[in-house]
Amino acid sequence: MKKVALAYSGGLDTSAIIPWLRENMDCEVYAVVGDVGQGADELAGVEKKAINSGAKECVVVDLKKEFVDDYVMPTVMAGSVYEGRYLLGTAMARPILAKAQVEAGRKFGCTAMAHGCTGKGNDQVRFESAYAALAPEMEIIAPWRHWNLRSREDLLNYLKEKNVPTTASATKIYSRDRNLWHISHEGGAIEDPWNPPPEDCYMLTAPPEKAPDKPEDVSVSFEKGRPVALNGAKMEAWKLIEKLNGIGGPHGVGRVDLVENRLVGMKSRGIYETPGGTILVEALRGLEEMVLDRETRHFKEHLALWFAEVVYNGRWFTPYRETLWAAIEKTCEKLTGEIVVRCYKGHATTIRRKSPFELYSEKFATFGKEDVYNQKHAEGFIRLLSLPERIAAMKRGGLK
Amino acid sequence: MKKVALAYSGGLDTSAIIPWLRENMDCEVYAVVGDVGQGADELAGVEKKAINSGAKECVVVDLKKEFVDDYVMPTVMAGSVYEGRYLLGTAMARPILAKAQVEAGRKFGCTAMAHGCTGKGNDQVRFESAYAALAPEMEIIAPWRHWNLRSREDLLNYLKEKNVPTTASATKIYSRDRNLWHISHEGGAIEDPWNPPPEDCYMLTAPPEKAPDKPEDVSVSFEKGRPVALNGAKMEAWKLIEKLNGIGGPHGVGRVDLVENRLVGMKSRGIYETPGGTILVEALRGLEEMVLDRETRHFKEHLALWFAEVVYNGRWFTPYRETLWAAIEKTCEKLTGEIVVRCYKGHATTIRRKSPFELYSEKFATFGKEDVYNQKHAEGFIRLLSLPERIAAMKRGGLK
Amino acid sequence: MKKVALAYSGGLDTSAIIPWLRENMDCEVYAVVGDVGQGADELAGVEKKAINSGAKECVVVDLKKEFVDDYVMPTVMAGSVYEGRYLLGTAMARPILAKAQVEAGRKFGCTAMAHGCTGKGNDQVRFESAYAALAPEMEIIAPWRHWNLRSREDLLNYLKEKNVPTTASATKIYSRDRNLWHISHEGGAIEDPWNPPPEDCYMLTAPPEKAPDKPEDVSVSFEKGRPVALNGAKMEAWKLIEKLNGIGGPHGVGRVDLVENRLVGMKSRGIYETPGGTILVEALRGLEEMVLDRETRHFKEHLALWFAEVVYNGRWFTPYRETLWAAIEKTCEKLTGEIVVRCYKGHATTIRRKSPFELYSEKFATFGKEDVYNQKHAEGFIRLLSLPERIAAMKRGGLK
Amino acid sequence: MKKVALAYSGGLDTSAIIPWLRENMDCEVYAVVGDVGQGADELAGVEKKAINSGAKECVVVDLKKEFVDDYVMPTVMAGSVYEGRYLLGTAMARPILAKAQVEAGRKFGCTAMAHGCTGKGNDQVRFESAYAALAPEMEIIAPWRHWNLRSREDLLNYLKEKNVPTTASATKIYSRDRNLWHISHEGGAIEDPWNPPPEDCYMLTAPPEKAPDKPEDVSVSFEKGRPVALNGAKMEAWKLIEKLNGIGGPHGVGRVDLVENRLVGMKSRGIYETPGGTILVEALRGLEEMVLDRETRHFKEHLALWFAEVVYNGRWFTPYRETLWAAIEKTCEKLTGEIVVRCYKGHATTIRRKSPFELYSEKFATFGKEDVYNQKHAEGFIRLLSLPERIAAMKRGGLK
Repeated sequence: MKKVALAYSGGLDTSAIIPWLRENMDCEVYAVVGDVGQGADELAGVEKKAINSGAKECVVVDLKKEFVDDYVMPTVMAGSVYEGRYLLGTAMARPILAKAQVEAGRKFGCTAMAHGCTGKGNDQVRFESAYAALAPEMEIIAPWRHWNLRSREDLLNYLKEKNVPTTASATKIYSRDRNLWHISHEGGAIEDPWNPPPEDCYMLTAPPEKAPDKPEDVSVSFEKGRPVALNGAKMEAWKLIEKLNGIGGPHGVGRVDLVENRLVGMKSRGIYETPGGTILVEALRGLEEMVLDRETRHFKEHLALWFAEVVYNGRWFTPYRETLWAAIEKTCEKLTGEIVVRCYKGHATTIRRKSPFELYSEKFATFGKEDVYNQKHAEGFIRLLSLPERIAAMKRGGLK
Repeated sequence: MKKVALAYSGGLDTSAIIPWLRENMDCEVYAVVGDVGQGADELAGVEKKAINSGAKECVVVDLKKEFVDDYVMPTVMAGSVYEGRYLLGTAMARPILAKAQVEAGRKFGCTAMAHGCTGKGNDQVRFESAYAALAPEMEIIAPWRHWNLRSREDLLNYLKEKNVPTTASATKIYSRDRNLWHISHEGGAIEDPWNPPPEDCYMLTAPPEKAPDKPEDVSVSFEKGRPVALNGAKMEAWKLIEKLNGIGGPHGVGRVDLVENRLVGMKSRGIYETPGGTILVEALRGLEEMVLDRETRHFKEHLALWFAEVVYNGRWFTPYRETLWAAIEKTCEKLTGEIVVRCYKGHATTIRRKSPFELYSEKFATFGKEDVYNQKHAEGFIRLLSLPERIAAMKRGGLK
Repeated sequence: MKKVALAYSGGLDTSAIIPWLRENMDCEVYAVVGDVGQGADELAGVEKKAINSGAKECVVVDLKKEFVDDYVMPTVMAGSVYEGRYLLGTAMARPILAKAQVEAGRKFGCTAMAHGCTGKGNDQVRFESAYAALAPEMEIIAPWRHWNLRSREDLLNYLKEKNVPTTASATKIYSRDRNLWHISHEGGAIEDPWNPPPEDCYMLTAPPEKAPDKPEDVSVSFEKGRPVALNGAKMEAWKLIEKLNGIGGPHGVGRVDLVENRLVGMKSRGIYETPGGTILVEALRGLEEMVLDRETRHFKEHLALWFAEVVYNGRWFTPYRETLWAAIEKTCEKLTGEIVVRCYKGHATTIRRKSPFELYSEKFATFGKEDVYNQKHAEGFIRLLSLPERIAAMKRGGLK
Repeated sequence: MKKVALAYSGGLDTSAIIPWLRENMDCEVYAVVGDVGQGADELAGVEKKAINSGAKECVVVDLKKEFVDDYVMPTVMAGSVYEGRYLLGTAMARPILAKAQVEAGRKFGCTAMAHGCTGKGNDQVRFESAYAALAPEMEIIAPWRHWNLRSREDLLNYLKEKNVPTTASATKIYSRDRNLWHISHEGGAIEDPWNPPPEDCYMLTAPPEKAPDKPEDVSVSFEKGRPVALNGAKMEAWKLIEKLNGIGGPHGVGRVDLVENRLVGMKSRGIYETPGGTILVEALRGLEEMVLDRETRHFKEHLALWFAEVVYNGRWFTPYRETLWAAIEKTCEKLTGEIVVRCYKGHATTIRRKSPFELYSEKFATFGKEDVYNQKHAEGFIRLLSLPERIAAMKRGGLK
């Protein structure tokens, strides 16, 4: 009898997949739940739910620390923001979930991997690319691309038919994904891009209009691009992000509304909330301003775009991602220092910056001692910099 | 007797340059003032001021429309934001000012070009690169790199000595540059990056905390990437930006605080206000989300970075800038549509989007008719996309 | 009864597709042959062959001039060479063949497009991407992905069974594609990358060891990046390439041996012959050396890589390709001049260069008059260029 | 009395600099000679020559191994070729020479660094950028930018005047730079780009026409991108390059003729000979073909261009160069294998390739077992890849 490992969330989709796999694949289903900080609500009783749905076994793996250190932070250190807005919260979680699923599946002796992603989204690509790189011997089963269930109502009917108990309701408006870093929302009124984002979709952030009238300043300390302290208190990165969520959320920080290009070729609109992450990304940017020289910073802006693409596209376990990361990590070697970010009415803004490696120097930037920089040097600099257009203009003008 | 054209602003620096040029270069000085929307305050009586300072003649050239259409809008259409924050307001104005100066200077029969930029800044590069490309036959005079005046006090003493009347005070804190698009601030308390931006430096924007508690929505219509109507009323781009300044400023929109890398090798900190421009840039980004396909949009993100560099570096009149612009303009062909931006407490955010060329389609993005996109197609897509890592993993695992 | 337009070559594969389509799709088959210079051998009697195979009609469209002007030359002007070696001869031809097929198919009233590309190659992507962009309403039929014929023998048996006469032999070693620009070879002994290229595969070029012992010099004149004259004689580009083939081939010029990455995820080894094209690409490179300034040339090196990718990937009719082309065409505006290339024993090398727009100048490059370039300028240039590392080193060393 | 370290070559220029420094700077001169494989001819008696010219001391530092391992090989592993032709032989040597000079200078207690580069070339930038990064406290003296000697004759007269014996002749035609990797030639008849390269300039390579009529095959084995064996015999990289020079030179391999863009803004023409290096670069390229996946290889092509720029521009000791190198080194992790290159009449061409990490597989590329790649997958791949242009076309056509 075939053994299948399922990336299980406890939600309606993967709950329906368990009986479907048993029935259609004649197999035992091993549910693997990765805890990436989706919260107690989602995880409560998840094992029992899996067993009730017909799983042979269910295992919950705590991935929070590894998720933040090895997936979230590299993306933050890269400065990657997909299409200028999206902090990649869902995309970053898929590779580690797939990896945990493969590892657990191997222990259970599974020969197939299943997931609950639909056939129109990016997540199927992210899961299956990870399977391809980590477990090419495994069969891949993606029920959404095979069954003919097409709506929540279909799923509920199917579960009822199979006598699987569920507390899910037929009227859920938004499709969501949550972890320690963010929550995403799709569907419902969001789907019309002429609609402003509906206020009722938000879960982690206060409406800016109801946020405190007084700004709140928060200090983040970094070592080599990784956050190590919050308001002076040392803590692990994943704890720090949790705390930052608690600070940024009430100020309405981290809401994003984006019509984005999916890897699979169509556009979709997503609403994202990343309160703590938004503060962290802003702080690191403030630190880069102080430390990175012009060439490195400008090159890193391109690295950030490419890395955003590979993360969004779920191509984490590839040599290309590793190549980009080698460069990005190198740019972070001197990103040590302290940044203060102000949260106010929906936004987070760097207001103070310092670093032992700062290239900024009041003395160099303004008038004063000329031993480092002689203003007369500028003439030669400009002259050589603009020499090609000068030569071209002279030739055009018959001057030479 | 040599004739020198001076890029004249009416400020303290260029006022001192007029007598200095006469005395040290034995020349007639022709003051050329470009009106790029710096405002009535700065332009009032500027001709008289020039003559009083010793200029032979002074001419004011209205560049507002050309400035916006041919310098500001290309940069906006490129999506260029220097080092992630700066909307390039000063950088965009230098090439057109230099061009007007060359044209006026040639009419006056000048053989030299002078400007009032210091030897530590970017503006000298921008002016002189333009001279190199447009008038390679002209001598270039940059008094700040030659004289030994080092402070406002030195300048005031020098003017006094030369009997040039001035209303400038010795106690001006901030160094500023203003035009229709923006105003920049440097110096004073801004120079310490551990200081939050001092509230007293701002001129065009209200403090977010004092902005209206009620958001204000503004609609911008575009044709081929250029704004053509505001809240439904057709108007020229430069007028539209003026209006947008009047809308964004009271909401505190468009403040930027940046420690930036100057082209000349050191870092400096600048505070910028670009109220209308910030709304415009945000609106065009919202439109791009609807219209540009993935490959084009992602490539354009890189184009935006390169174009930001060439604009910041003042290399406007170069084949490289023209090459980038040809690509950028092509990406704007379908950027026609209407975007609504919400202004609130210091920020401008796209909330509604529509375009006749939108690739977004609810039908494609969600469940439903499958004639365009068959979910089963996704399997093949993923399979081929991840084939290289699958082959590598199989070879590693001895599977092949 | 359904009408299907087939991209027909007269070869074994597409000959078998005609009866297969009729039998399996219950349709009329309209064979469309694009003449892209594959030569009289391939085109002789092709219409009759199509009819004999069961086609309702067959049309041959002369695409030679359009192929060279609008597909080959842009790729040459881009300087695009896929993975450093391949001059993209097959890739460039697919879009124009698909376009001609769509146009002819529409005239015939067809509702489907068929082609003879296999399911493992790049060409299926190139044809079908073109259909998607030009004729999204058309059904696409790719018999190789459906039937279970797997070898030349299978195809011959199938034709025999259907009573279709053929002169094709079962023992053809290499799989080939030929047009005015090049010929490609795959299969047979080529498939083992430890084998040197087998001499018997070559068709257009002499073995270098048997090429003349005396070099032959050829002059190519360009206007805006397009070749306009050969050894001083004006002629159309496609004629010029034919003549260059006649010159380069006997000298063994233009052989390429490449293990390449296919778009569909696996590697394959190809042998290519592009005698005239190799001379042309070399000549244009020599001209660029004289004319393009540093920034433009270096940026164009990247453009060449991206354009090579889109051409190889068959994404010709996309906004991204058009965006790249807009930039590339701009870089060619001044590529006017004359270049002499020496052909000898398998290689073509630029030996003489001149252009009315050359930025090269002996006077500037060597000692002499210093009005354009003052050697003292170099000090300032270096000083500012290296300022960031100087500041960093000073801070490290406690010097500041 | 000031102590100055001079990058000394024993040539005419640096020989004249010794008395000039003593006379004009009132200093002791410490001559530092870096042995980067320029050959016994150049190094013979160089210490005595320095002392005879007036140097206080002269030290020769053997840099050959470090030069090849840490400067040449990284550039080769990057695949960097400046402007498509130049293998960067001079550029790579400058940073290590400057570093050795700084280290020796510090031992001697020097407070200034001097070099013999002219004010129009790239080398001054390379030396002085290294000084800036490694020894910002040192004064920099560049005699060519100060004295008014302008020709070999001037130099000879100056030496005669100062009673410095020299064997240099006034009639040297070409300006040259030689090391273990290459030799460069400038000046004389080379300066007219309409002249073919003059045969009399070449020193390391036979004229292709006089090269053996029989090709010679050479096998190079690599580990992680570094050559470890030649024709099966293990040896250090610098020894291996010396041997390769001995193989490639007689076959005329490695001649380059380039009109290049100097960093300092003008164009110059250079002739280069890099016989062994050309074979090595070709071999590594052949290995990359087998091992690197599509995304990594295509990204690496861009890395190669950027790395070529930083090396050419002499910006070795910068964070940007280190960032690029981190990425490049990562791409070399699997570049282990054996490549056979054929040398014949001026060219070196890969003819055999194998690697334990090769992604190439005959089984995947051709017909056969379909467990890794199902041809039907291609349909979905193409469908999703081309979806954006399909949607655009459908909207244009009113189909949706």
